[in-house]
Order: sequence, then C-alpha cells, then structure tokens
Amino acid sequence: MDGMINDVAKHPSKTVPVAEEQRPLSDLLRLPAGPVDLSTLATDATLGFPGAGKADAAHVDTVLQPELDDLQERLFANGRATPEAAPRVLLVLQGMDTSGKGGVIRHAIGMVDPQGLAITSFKAPTKAELAHPFLWRIDRALPGPGMIGIFDRSHYEDVLVVRVHDLVPEDVWGARYDEINAWEEALVASGTTIVKCFLHVSHDKQKERLAERLADPTKYWKYNPGDVDERLRWPAYTEAYEAALERCSTQHAPWFVVPADRKWYRNWAVAQLLTEHLRGLGLSWPAADFDVEAEQKRVAAS
Amino acid sequence: MDGMINDVAKHPSKTVPVAEEQRPLSDLLRLPAGPVDLSTLATDATLGFPGAGKADAAHVDTVLQPELDDLQERLFANGRATPEAAPRVLLVLQGMDTSGKGGVIRHAIGMVDPQGLAITSFKAPTKAELAHPFLWRIDRALPGPGMIGIFDRSHYEDVLVVRVHDLVPEDVWGARYDEINAWEEALVASGTTIVKCFLHVSHDKQKERLAERLADPTKYWKYNPGDVDERLRWPAYTEAYEAALERCSTQHAPWFVVPADRKWYRNWAVAQLLTEHLRGLGLSWPAADFDVEAEQKRVAAS
Repeated sequence: MDGMINDVAKHPSKTVPVAEEQRPLSDLLRLPAGPVDLSTLATDATLGFPGAGKADAAHVDTVLQPELDDLQERLFANGRATPEAAPRVLLVLQGMDTSGKGGVIRHAIGMVDPQGLAITSFKAPTKAELAHPFLWRIDRALPGPGMIGIFDRSHYEDVLVVRVHDLVPEDVWGARYDEINAWEEALVASGTTIVKCFLHVSHDKQKERLAERLADPTKYWKYNPGDVDERLRWPAYTEAYEAALERCSTQHAPWFVVPADRKWYRNWAVAQLLTEHLRGLGLSWPAADFDVEAEQKRVAAS
Repeated sequence: MDGMINDVAKHPSKTVPVAEEQRPLSDLLRLPAGPVDLSTLATDATLGFPGAGKADAAHVDTVLQPELDDLQERLFANGRATPEAAPRVLLVLQGMDTSGKGGVIRHAIGMVDPQGLAITSFKAPTKAELAHPFLWRIDRALPGPGMIGIFDRSHYEDVLVVRVHDLVPEDVWGARYDEINAWEEALVASGTTIVKCFLHVSHDKQKERLAERLADPTKYWKYNPGDVDERLRWPAYTEAYEAALERCSTQHAPWFVVPADRKWYRNWAVAQLLTEHLRGLGLSWPAADFDVEAEQKRVAAS
C-alpha cells in the first residue's frame, strides 16, 4: 500500500489515474451517508487489497506488519513519555455471529505488540453493570494513553441484542443512538481515535461456518445452540444493524463496513484500517527529556 | 524441539543418547537447589536451542509457534467451556534493566493470541496500593480461567528494589520470602501453573544496551537517567536477586534462569518454557455439551 502511494508520488508529472487499490482503504470502506441497506453492501469483496489475493499473504508480512509495528511503537512510546498528551486509539469490532471478531483479534491484532493492547470482550452485562447507565462499563474499559483498545462487541450491543430481544423499552434503546454519538464525540475530543468496523458476513457464509464448527471436535467449544436461535432472528438483527450504522456513522467516528466472507481479506482490511488511522496521527518519536551527551558519558563511565 | 522428540520416538530400538538439545528446556534452565551465585550462571549460553543459532529463526515459525498456538487455544477453549475447572498460567518476568522483559513480551508472548493474555506491568506502587499488603495488587492481576497472565516485574520487586533501597525495614522484607512461597503454593494448589523466568543479563551487556538507547533517537523513550543510578547498585541488586532466587525456587514454583545476552535466544527460551508448561497440562479439547447431530440438523434447516 505504502509502496504504491510512493510510486505515485515519485512520478508527479504523470497524471496517474488513482486506481481503487491506491486510495486509502478508509475511503473505500467508509459507510456512505444516507439510508443503509446491508443487502446492497458486498460481503465477499476484496476492495483495496494490494496483492494478488489470498496467496499474497507475504504482502502482510513484508509491508503491512512492519509499518503497523512501527506506528504502534510510536504510539506506545508517546504514551510512556507524555501520557498527558498522548493519543489513544479504540478499535470497535461488531458483526453477526461467525463474522470473525475473534479471528480478527487473533490474526490482525495479533500482529501488534501485546503490551500496547487493552482488549475487552463484552458479554451480557452483569447485575452490577445493569445497575449503571449502559455506557458505564464501556467507560471503564477505555484505553489509556498510548494504548490501542480493542472492543470485541461494545456499547453497540445496547442497540442491537437489546433491541432485537426487547430487553428494555423502545424509548430507552431509541434514545441511545444520540447518547452514543454524544459520548463518542466527547471521547474523540479528548484525544481518542475511534475506528468502528462492522464485519459484514453473508447469511449463507454464517451457515457454512456454523456447520464447520459442528464438523470439527476442536471447534465444538466455539458453538452454542443459542447461535441458531440468533440466526433465526437474522432479519431483526439486520434491521438493528442498519439503524445503528446509519444513525451512528458520524464525522468524528464513521463506521467502516468490512466484507467478511473471506477471512484473509477481513483480517488484512482491519489491520490496514488500523494502520491508516495510526498513520494519520503523524506521531514522531518522543524527544529526550535529558541531556543525551551527559548521559552517554555517565553510561560510559559506569 | 518437537521434531527431535518425535525422531527419537520413531526409532525406539536405537539407544539414542539424549543430547542436551533433546532434554526439556525446563530441565536445562531450572535453578539447581542450593546457594545461588549468579556469576557462575551463563548469560550468553544458548542451551537447548534446537536450530543452528540466530539464523534459524525459521524453527520458531515452523515448529514452536504452531505448537504454542495450538496449546494456548486449548487452554483458552477450556476456560470458556469449563471456567470452574480450567487451569490458568502465570508467567513471571524478572531481570535487571535492559534484560529484555519488554522484548520477550513483544517477540515471544507476541506469538500468542492476544485474547488469551492478561499482561500486567508493575510500576512503583501507588499510595492506595501501599496501604494494602504487598500481595494485594498482585492478587488483583491474576489471570482468569484459561488465560495466560504475564507479569512484567511482580511481587518479587518487594524483595528486590524494596530491599536495595531500604523502602521498608529489614524485618518486613525479610519475612516476605516465606510469604511469597506460601502465596505461590496456594496459587498452584488452586490450579495456576507458575513459570518464573529470571532474564540473566551481564553487566557489560547492560552497558552496551544503555549506550544503544542513547545512540538512537527512536529509543530515547526507553532510557531514564535513573537507569544509570540503578546500574551503580548492580552488586546490591545481584545480592537481592540471589536471595530471591535461592529462597523462592520451590518444588511448586521453581525459578528458571534464562541467559539473556542474546535476544533471539532469550525470546525463544521463554516461548519454549511456556510451551513446555502448557504441554504439561495435557489439555484436550472440550467435549460438546450439546447434541452434535441434532444441532447439525438445526443449522442445515436454518
């Protein structure tokens, strides 16, 4: 990706048409404004992938991984050096069952130094959590300075599963879209970059993946009979997702729709989105807050 | 490592002498009982490394990483399926400044799915933490079922920096060795496997690494003038480490002394120790707690 951008930059006199592959992935996958109809958004596309497809995983190792590694370390270094000023990043992962939230963490986020990660997997809220406003437990899981927070499910469940299962009255969940937007806006204003990824998997692919789990004893633990019950509510979840995406894709925190039928693309795309957002922070290495030469002498004498 | 063990197993009729490389690394690096003199323990050895040295990092990718990945996923799966019965693993990393605790987490622990990790980096205790017994904050950071906890520094600091700097009276820190042993024994009895690694770096190598940080602006953030102050206390730290290693290397939670002058070896060794301990848990995949055939039919019909 980086290489391609550089190629264009190297030949400024040529009017190189910017191909789809050369635009930032963030532009390609950002949810367009307006009504959302998930059936019109591809689940099996490989939009923006710079390699030759699945076989080109080498691209990930040689281009993406080193850049992500460098950018994450800069972020972490700033968190250590100037915690009061360092940015924070929050990656929100949402998607139907089997869309691959766990797979993305394992394979894409797994490329990042684990010291710089704060991963939270949100389950059904506890009684104690339910006694608080829905954003209370979310606030407590926010990443610190220089950290990348990863939410495996998030506050969006409070307008998804909660809506589909009528867990609170409609006027309560109905008010949450605006609450979420206000909360995210404040979070961004305080120095957190939010990257919200909806992993978009097809109804057929979900069936295939559930069947795979039942065909392989090493995957039984990933299966829950409740998964089929939820699958039968696919239309209701689709409606809830469409509302959440439409109402909460904002200027400060847009939604990205990641085609998730192909695991290798889904993993690459999330890593690439994260990389582009880190790149956008324009982070330099922290300056020394000590006299380098004097310290060099002290070390030499020690 | 695995490959070698298999090779031996495949030819049971031959009396293959078990070379150093074929013994578990846990045996090779376990601190022997008796008085500890760190000056007699190598910092630059490559004991047990099955490849041809640094160039053989391919061994890590093709043998160690896949096994570690499989074992960690089994542990995690058991934590999900039967949290009340699933084991927990706690890796404790200690060592002088620049011994590479952070490097080990980045490169060795970085091979593990980050969802299965609970990393805690212990800093100087806060006022609130100091108001509690020293093990209080440690208890709060213990890994949950199926998780691998990583301690970057640990309760051992309470008999290391605390002893060197006289932060509490001698009778207080002096009582802590027994307290630690009793606490660790109870932890092991409750189902946690403890793997304690002392990253053993030489005095010269530390100097070299501090100088490197001062020679590279992208590493300034890792340097603190206090590092040289601590370096000047090397003999006192050595004495404190020798006492901690000697008094707290127990049957239930032995210390492993990892030669840490060569980064590639140090990283491999910690990953290998973790792998061997996970292997020792003999974990199988959780059985299905549902009727597989009935669920297959439900999925097919959905």
